[in-house]
Amino acid sequence: MKFTFLIFNGMTTLDFIGVYDPVTRLKTMNFVEDVKWDVCGFTEKVTDDSGLVLTPTNVKENLDSYDLLIVPGGLGTRKLIRDADFIQWLQTARDCPLKTSVCTGSLLLGAAGFLQGKKATTHPNAFALLKGYCQEVLDQRIVPEEGVITSRGVTSGIELGLYLCEKIAGHDVKEKIRIQMDYKTEDIR
Amino acid sequence: MKFTFLIFNGMTTLDFIGVYDPVTRLKTMNFVEDVKWDVCGFTEKVTDDSGLVLTPTNVKENLDSYDLLIVPGGLGTRKLIRDADFIQWLQTARDCPLKTSVCTGSLLLGAAGFLQGKKATTHPNAFALLKGYCQEVLDQRIVPEEGVITSRGVTSGIELGLYLCEKIAGHDVKEKIRIQMDYKTEDIR
Repeated sequence: MKFTFLIFNGMTTLDFIGVYDPVTRLKTMNFVEDVKWDVCGFTEKVTDDSGLVLTPTNVKENLDSYDLLIVPGGLGTRKLIRDADFIQWLQTARDCPLKTSVCTGSLLLGAAGFLQGKKATTHPNAFALLKGYCQEVLDQRIVPEEGVITSRGVTSGIELGLYLCEKIAGHDVKEKIRIQMDYKTEDIR
Repeated sequence: MKFTFLIFNGMTTLDFIGVYDPVTRLKTMNFVEDVKWDVCGFTEKVTDDSGLVLTPTNVKENLDSYDLLIVPGGLGTRKLIRDADFIQWLQTARDCPLKTSVCTGSLLLGAAGFLQGKKATTHPNAFALLKGYCQEVLDQRIVPEEGVITSRGVTSGIELGLYLCEKIAGHDVKEKIRIQMDYKTEDIR
């Protein structure tokens, strides 16, 4: 399995890392050997919404070879939904079988056309904005649809990450990862 | 107030970002104007325990001008507690009035001598290792001592971050930040 974590200027890093931490543990805790990931950016350097600088492993490369796409949110999304070049790049993930987002990352999935006919969620502040991109906005921590899973605000990314761990490797592995993360909530839905 | 977030090779990024997200919101959500922060490293580039590359704002600079020190954990700490140069650098934070850690970051605070005579916590896997550095290891999410606050495993960093928001700006501001982070748990202790 090959994951791609999208990063971009003005993102909220906790949206990204909340998923990155649990799902990379599938590999680093030796549960699933065949897991790889790239951190894909549209710029050589990425500066988050509070000034932190991250370096992507790949820049502007096509996203067509991944099994799982993870898109964080952040104020930067408001500009990017109108950035034709960025959205065109995101659309190269068209054939990725599982597309996921945290917080306002769902606006980007929406702008790329990936939420058409789907139910989805986002940060409560962006429910109105998301309406234009999907069939129905749901007020849930995680909205799993066929091929697309969206999660609500920032910290819901941790729940999305654990949800993906369970989907990929089962309940017991998810529980071991949750305990290693010292995450309290057993019931993640 | 000036914060320093320490980053280092082999750290767990969620330990860092779990605090970074809430406390930087004090500034980005306009609650406290006089807040600044640096991301301080001992190397020009920092690679976390799963390969993510971050760039510090300052490298090997003295840590004596900060009001709040935040130290994440990660497997990299096991090597760094025996790295005399790194520990000597960390000791330049001696006069920082509030030193905090997430997960095994407390081992680094301990190796620097900052936990002498204090109660402290860490990831449950490292309780035994922490014993040599402090007066008593407590199995609590957050252990607030005079001048030193340690938190337990990885995701307890979010609780530490919210705890610091309340300490700095009061309960109402902390609650607004928690809601913006879409963090469910109202009772953070």
